[in-house]
Amino acid sequence: MPAPPPKSFPEPPAEKKALELGHAFTPRFDREGLIPCVTQHADTGEVLMFAFMNAESLRATIDTGFVHYWSRSRAKLWRKGESSGMSQAVVELRTDCDQDVVLARVRIGAATADGAGGVAASCHVGFPGCFYRAVEGEGLKIVEQRVFDPEKVYGGA
Amino acid sequence: MPAPPPKSFPEPPAEKKALELGHAFTPRFDREGLIPCVTQHADTGEVLMFAFMNAESLRATIDTGFVHYWSRSRAKLWRKGESSGMSQAVVELRTDCDQDVVLARVRIGAATADGAGGVAASCHVGFPGCFYRAVEGEGLKIVEQRVFDPEKVYGGA
Repeated sequence: MPAPPPKSFPEPPAEKKALELGHAFTPRFDREGLIPCVTQHADTGEVLMFAFMNAESLRATIDTGFVHYWSRSRAKLWRKGESSGMSQAVVELRTDCDQDVVLARVRIGAATADGAGGVAASCHVGFPGCFYRAVEGEGLKIVEQRVFDPEKVYGGA
Repeated sequence: MPAPPPKSFPEPPAEKKALELGHAFTPRFDREGLIPCVTQHADTGEVLMFAFMNAESLRATIDTGFVHYWSRSRAKLWRKGESSGMSQAVVELRTDCDQDVVLARVRIGAATADGAGGVAASCHVGFPGCFYRAVEGEGLKIVEQRVFDPEKVYGGA
């Protein structure tokens, strides 16, 4: 049985002050129907990743309590963790002043036992978050520890 | 005397592994020449704001140690704090696995004495960061404290 169509979001108000200080959640999607999402660990504050949502994935995130993104490369709804087991449970969802970005504050779900060995991580490269390299001079330096082997989790894809 | 043209960034490598685990900083700008930037307070971990950079603003950020964005609405290089006094000093600049996002970890410069009253903030609405509202049910709730009066800082614009 197909799911009922998700509730849409209301139109943004015309007045800037209402958009910035109001209590209506009126997310503003770009021309491609997307809104950027910054995902942060709710306990440590680490910025884990950045991805896009469309209205369907934002609605699924709110309704299920687990972060869903829109995969631009695969053009599909993407429940984070559906392949890796490392799902993101929403602790708090925020939006910014002009409501064209969302911030998902999350905890990372337990990974599959034979995959990441119970390690809570978010980045497919094997680090807890995607921002594991810092700019130094004209180059990059890895400043975080790798915590799982992607070949074991994703089967070497 | 006009400044010399900024050094450009090298082309991204063709190989995914080099992009993800290499030590060359090869930021990937989108079709419009922009790269998203997440800005986080280096001490508290608070996500302060989200904006875009182009190659010129990313280069200016690296070379000056102060965050520069590209203002899409004004189509100009934007040194954060140039109006408000609330500049962002770079503590660390990171990039993500596929180098199409940057994370600026910053401290906020002292505000002008007669403006924000010395309050360190980043959002033009008067909050420390832009993500001052959380989604609750179908609405939004303000979950942070306003710390300055925008009319005093920006002259009621």
